[in-house]
Amino acid sequence: MSEIVTAGILVIGDEILSGRTKDKNIGFIAEYLTNIGIDLKEVRVVADDEADIIAALNALRNRYDYVFTTGGIGPTHDDITADSVAKAFGVGIDHHPEVVARFRERWGAADLNEARLRMARIPDGAELIQSATILAPGFKIGNVIVMAGVPSIMQAMMDIVAPKLKSGVRMLSESVRANAREGDIGGPLRDIAIAHPDTIIGSYPFIDDDKKPNTNLVVRSRDPEKLNAAMSAVKEMLAGLNVAR
Amino acid sequence: MSEIVTAGILVIGDEILSGRTKDKNIGFIAEYLTNIGIDLKEVRVVADDEADIIAALNALRNRYDYVFTTGGIGPTHDDITADSVAKAFGVGIDHHPEVVARFRERWGAADLNEARLRMARIPDGAELIQSATILAPGFKIGNVIVMAGVPSIMQAMMDIVAPKLKSGVRMLSESVRANAREGDIGGPLRDIAIAHPDTIIGSYPFIDDDKKPNTNLVVRSRDPEKLNAAMSAVKEMLAGLNVAR
Repeated sequence: MSEIVTAGILVIGDEILSGRTKDKNIGFIAEYLTNIGIDLKEVRVVADDEADIIAALNALRNRYDYVFTTGGIGPTHDDITADSVAKAFGVGIDHHPEVVARFRERWGAADLNEARLRMARIPDGAELIQSATILAPGFKIGNVIVMAGVPSIMQAMMDIVAPKLKSGVRMLSESVRANAREGDIGGPLRDIAIAHPDTIIGSYPFIDDDKKPNTNLVVRSRDPEKLNAAMSAVKEMLAGLNVAR
Repeated sequence: MSEIVTAGILVIGDEILSGRTKDKNIGFIAEYLTNIGIDLKEVRVVADDEADIIAALNALRNRYDYVFTTGGIGPTHDDITADSVAKAFGVGIDHHPEVVARFRERWGAADLNEARLRMARIPDGAELIQSATILAPGFKIGNVIVMAGVPSIMQAMMDIVAPKLKSGVRMLSESVRANAREGDIGGPLRDIAIAHPDTIIGSYPFIDDDKKPNTNLVVRSRDPEKLNAAMSAVKEMLAGLNVAR
């Protein structure tokens, strides 16, 4: 269980790049993966363009244990994710009989048109990600998990797929409010970071409720003792500060 | 003025990948670039890791007209963006005399410590992005624009740098609420998309106030006449629909 498990996210959609839709999936998946012991290493956002999707997907899936994609699995002509994923893997794609059967239960012959049947196109060899409440399924092929772009549906798909993923030792995290300006603690904080090499120490400035510059310090480590040691050093440093803000 | 100008965004920060901080910069920059006639083609998010930053930056700056980075230009040990950018360009980096002079005006000798001076490190040959209200400057080197991660500061930097950028013919956009389920219009919409090749037609499902599945259709084009023609075809198609939702 000392293994480190890594992941990338690939967000697919013109609407994110045009700014028309503000992405809400990256933050959700990032937090979700951290909580289940998977390290998110990289995110890419690309357009609804087959070559761009394939290039980004291949880069990410060769580099990380898992890749999570969002967007582009609906019924319209701009939904090209499933076909692009099949091409990236060099496998065929066709209407999945189980999905078609479910669609037939839900829609009459008049409504089960070609556009809706498009949502049943699943690359050969992929496992479906579906539930009673998910209409158009996501799927997992190799180390790639293909999900919807609509946040509520994506979130339901994460809940289905997460228990099946291998996960590593969870990255633990503790934070403290410095009540100091970032520039006043940068020096001592660097010394602590150097003295505690198996931890990651982050410094995040913000403006607090009193309109004063303030800083959150976050210590992360997979080892609880090392995390505690580094956090103690941070708190000791903060207690010894003698600076006005 | 018929040139197409492209851009990428590189978001730098462990805190985004851990999910601790939810990015608000991608959506802002995306919309900003669309409005000034620059096409955002790709976004990447990477950790505070020199090799990762350099690899992503080089990929993006070789591919697009501009790259906008956010994050990692503060006073602490995890702020390594300026040094990484200098390495990516193969240039030196040092305390910029103009920035140091400004810092001396603001801080006394006791407060102008090594950490704060770190924010004056600017790659050789870069132009500063600064104003009276921006403390630590951003900078532009080659086609790369390096900005703060704090949204309010990043936004002030965009306002400073934007007038200096070349921009292309603006992508125009019009949208219509379909009052139809995406699956009912996917077929005719595809036909319209094929008949109007110089437009981009996007279909975005949502749940409306009556809890019914609904769809926003967006037509984009640089040519106003082609946009109008495609939008007319979309509206005609919608008017002829005879489906229950």
